[in-house]
Amino acid sequence: MPRTAETASFKFNHTMIRIKDPKASLTFYQDILGMELLSEKKFDDFTLYFLAFNHAGHELTGDEKENSRFAREGVLELTHNHGTESDPSFQGYANGNSDPGKGFGHIAITVDDVEKACERFERLGVAFKKRPSDGKMKNIAFILDPDGYWIEVVPGILNL
Amino acid sequence: MPRTAETASFKFNHTMIRIKDPKASLTFYQDILGMELLSEKKFDDFTLYFLAFNHAGHELTGDEKENSRFAREGVLELTHNHGTESDPSFQGYANGNSDPGKGFGHIAITVDDVEKACERFERLGVAFKKRPSDGKMKNIAFILDPDGYWIEVVPGILNL
Repeated sequence: MPRTAETASFKFNHTMIRIKDPKASLTFYQDILGMELLSEKKFDDFTLYFLAFNHAGHELTGDEKENSRFAREGVLELTHNHGTESDPSFQGYANGNSDPGKGFGHIAITVDDVEKACERFERLGVAFKKRPSDGKMKNIAFILDPDGYWIEVVPGILNL
Repeated sequence: MPRTAETASFKFNHTMIRIKDPKASLTFYQDILGMELLSEKKFDDFTLYFLAFNHAGHELTGDEKENSRFAREGVLELTHNHGTESDPSFQGYANGNSDPGKGFGHIAITVDDVEKACERFERLGVAFKKRPSDGKMKNIAFILDPDGYWIEVVPGILNL
């Protein structure tokens, strides 16, 4: 039940972050996290990549991918400004968690088994901000994507 | 169909941003955007607010809210560090779109009618980064939340 009729159609469609190198980021989000590339839109100066987890129970057709990218929730948009990947003077993007620039915190993925997911991330060489065994919260972890953005790894039911 | 069996359970659960004043932000995300507060967790120094659009077709029970906040996609987590709302020296959070601190871009909501949604935002006094009539892309808009984070407003089907 939506709060008001006027907002009944609203969905939290996507989150956009900037990336330095699409090769590194697409490998990470597709092969390590398991997201699917719904759409890739190349413009003169930048390219947009839309990714999401496929919960449909079947392979998505090209049309299904394209039509779902603004129609569903849980989409990640990666913006690549052309040239950053090979520019030695490019400083990299702020991940939002240190001053100045603090504001954005992280994105989070739900997994059925945090321990197992993290063992796999470890094997695949993913960098950790917090392993499940670090700190007080043993049932969550934070991994880092290729640009250093924090990704929280949480169980589907978490008592917090 | 998930890309690998190991990531089959993964979902893009939430996006976390820091907010200065929960009163302003909760009014904005609940009453203007129409999200529902799933959970509020108060700690000594900070409070976490989890919000999402309710697509269930019925009012959520307390348990449904609590159990869904790490189980579904499309959740927004607002982190309030206590005291910022009344601290005159607090500079506010970077929205991620200016240097230094550039990295995070925006979140986006899908609506069935961008024009109509924006007319309502206008009536409610929401600040715009881009009205539908501004610039080249007539079918999208960007509004600003109380901290200045950009929120893109897109139609469910957008040819881009």
